[in-house]
Amino acid sequence: MATVRPPRDAETDPRVKAVFDDIRTTRGTDFINNFWRYLAFDPGLLEQVWTDVRDVMAKDSALDGKTKEMIYIAVSIANSCDYCIHSHTASARARGMTSAEYADLLRVVSTAARTNHLVNGMKVPVDPEFDADHAG
Amino acid sequence: MATVRPPRDAETDPRVKAVFDDIRTTRGTDFINNFWRYLAFDPGLLEQVWTDVRDVMAKDSALDGKTKEMIYIAVSIANSCDYCIHSHTASARARGMTSAEYADLLRVVSTAARTNHLVNGMKVPVDPEFDADHAG
Amino acid sequence: MATVRPPRDAETDPRVKAVFDDIRTTRGTDFINNFWRYLAFDPGLLEQVWTDVRDVMAKDSALDGKTKEMIYIAVSIANSCDYCIHSHTASARARGMTSAEYADLLRVVSTAARTNHLVNGMKVPVDPEFDADHAG
Amino acid sequence: MATVRPPRDAETDPRVKAVFDDIRTTRGTDFINNFWRYLAFDPGLLEQVWTDVRDVMAKDSALDGKTKEMIYIAVSIANSCDYCIHSHTASARARGMTSAEYADLLRVVSTAARTNHLVNGMKVPVDPEFDADHAG
Amino acid sequence: MATVRPPRDAETDPRVKAVFDDIRTTRGTDFINNFWRYLAFDPGLLEQVWTDVRDVMAKDSALDGKTKEMIYIAVSIANSCDYCIHSHTASARARGMTSAEYADLLRVVSTAARTNHLVNGMKVPVDPEFDADHAG
Amino acid sequence: MATVRPPRDAETDPRVKAVFDDIRTTRGTDFINNFWRYLAFDPGLLEQVWTDVRDVMAKDSALDGKTKEMIYIAVSIANSCDYCIHSHTASARARGMTSAEYADLLRVVSTAARTNHLVNGMKVPVDPEFDADHAG
Repeated sequence: MATVRPPRDAETDPRVKAVFDDIRTTRGTDFINNFWRYLAFDPGLLEQVWTDVRDVMAKDSALDGKTKEMIYIAVSIANSCDYCIHSHTASARARGMTSAEYADLLRVVSTAARTNHLVNGMKVPVDPEFDADHAG
Repeated sequence: MATVRPPRDAETDPRVKAVFDDIRTTRGTDFINNFWRYLAFDPGLLEQVWTDVRDVMAKDSALDGKTKEMIYIAVSIANSCDYCIHSHTASARARGMTSAEYADLLRVVSTAARTNHLVNGMKVPVDPEFDADHAG
Repeated sequence: MATVRPPRDAETDPRVKAVFDDIRTTRGTDFINNFWRYLAFDPGLLEQVWTDVRDVMAKDSALDGKTKEMIYIAVSIANSCDYCIHSHTASARARGMTSAEYADLLRVVSTAARTNHLVNGMKVPVDPEFDADHAG
Repeated sequence: MATVRPPRDAETDPRVKAVFDDIRTTRGTDFINNFWRYLAFDPGLLEQVWTDVRDVMAKDSALDGKTKEMIYIAVSIANSCDYCIHSHTASARARGMTSAEYADLLRVVSTAARTNHLVNGMKVPVDPEFDADHAG
Repeated sequence: MATVRPPRDAETDPRVKAVFDDIRTTRGTDFINNFWRYLAFDPGLLEQVWTDVRDVMAKDSALDGKTKEMIYIAVSIANSCDYCIHSHTASARARGMTSAEYADLLRVVSTAARTNHLVNGMKVPVDPEFDADHAG
Repeated sequence: MATVRPPRDAETDPRVKAVFDDIRTTRGTDFINNFWRYLAFDPGLLEQVWTDVRDVMAKDSALDGKTKEMIYIAVSIANSCDYCIHSHTASARARGMTSAEYADLLRVVSTAARTNHLVNGMKVPVDPEFDADHAG
């Protein structure tokens, strides 16, 4: 049950087809997951979001792909996005995340959440030593 | 301005002194940041939290220290913990995070937040392919 | 599966019946959605919440009804309230939200989330120009 | 106090200058607010984010500019982004939001938050009537 | 720095004066804190919110006042509302919360946050034993 | 559907068995809920989390058990953790929370959320009277 209906025969729209083809090429698989199928209800939005996600997640950059997927999972947990947690945990495993690394990820995420709430409760003042200009 | 007062002469309490000494040894510095100074208002809570944070963040584990700090930052941003963002961005830099890696971290965190909100808005159903048992 | 059971024959309680009747009259429909049926487990709470929601959402005010429903959806997405997202997306459509407007809503919500996380990560200082007193 | 330093003489970088010029032209003002000044620490990220924000917020689309700013504020409140709340409340006023409309916005945002928490607490099941396919 | 200006001579408006008088009487003090002073920018909103907060927090009900203040703090921490954390921690202390109880509150809040993130990460299925109807 | 598989025959691992036995003894029941069954995928994480939850929630401390469960529920609602809401609402009832107390809890949680969003929207400055040092 969703708030939009994924278009049937979505790829009869050339803008949707171009994005789906790029997803298949970029990922090397025929599988198009539901996020893109539903987002196709608005081809312009589909293009914008896919371009951004592809450029950030699939292109070479300072961080390797597995690390980026784990950071993605961390944000998705904190924002309670069930779908995103499932899809990016699957992506992280596909990119080599081991079970031990996943347990470590959960350990860090849950410890961070614990101290986030402690610090927010006590309203601890920020040490001047943490300023970006401190050592400058 | 905080909701608790950090105890003066905190290290006259042997439990506080033991934790502060362990912080100094573990980190190789005399600097004790405000989080621990304020948390010392309850020595038992200080012990529990420090033990947990040290075991998760400072000990060798499946993920390296720099990656763990970046995951910590990601969660702290999503949970809006100002102090934690400052302290762990400083820690990540101390553990080698470059400016390019930090930009990449922000890129992933903000892209994840964008798709988290899109997916949560559309209530996209989870693909069965993402089930941990799918390939099993 | 819920944490409370909606009372059977809820309208035998005159306070519940009065609220349900007012919902039907205000909305011009016999349909009472689950939120009110479950909230009826405590008639006092039902009265308080219905009165507030009716006064804010159903009465004439500075903003038109469709705009108010879209703002409601935006908050519900950010707070991850699945039920609220479904019910208020349905309400917004009933009040005239088009598919193009819905796509635009998702575009704004997800872009806001992206910059929220970027700004919270960098801890950008607020420009004095934004102060309510600035032009005063 | 921020986690990055805004580059001095940022506009000696031609990519930064091009974005700043486009901000000035699009908004019809010489004022560049801190968000863009700090984001300039990574010119690529600056380009991506400005392009997205400009296309979503400054271009003609299904929703008018004032409504989009109010939706932006709603998300920023729920995500606790202080800077974003300040900057977009200023933008909404500049685009014509009256004091009465602002009070109405706060009324809707806070009522939504109240019912979000009520519904999430009771875990109310979604009515099948809200399905996008229901009337289909 | 705020997004609204608190009205000067607010009590020349009889609706504001009536609310401020009721706050003074209910609390037995002349002190009116900033939340109400700023909210007075819209007398109707001030009336609605004060009536609700007074009825929930200041009237006798199933839970005692100190417990209600601690629950209020817990929500405010999770929602990152700095002002609310400060004002309700002060209220809880005024209603008898001891330092040991406050430490216990922080212990529960931060442990809950930790398991919230763990469970949300693993997407653990809900046991049927937790259904409100289970024992029914 | 979860992101990890609970180990079959989990108690053949002596560390898992020791934790499960301690859960049974502490709670006086043979029932082990899914959270612990899934967490057993990493015995070290299971030990850490159970020890912490047991010490905070099951041991005598400044706050009584029922109050602690209600605070836990409040945080879990604000963090949108469905499983946690279900499990701790069941625990609170088992520890004596009445239906009237539960309604009161929901009343406080939802009123707090409402004012959290109002205050965060207006960015009300904190009164100096709320400082922990004010009366000192």
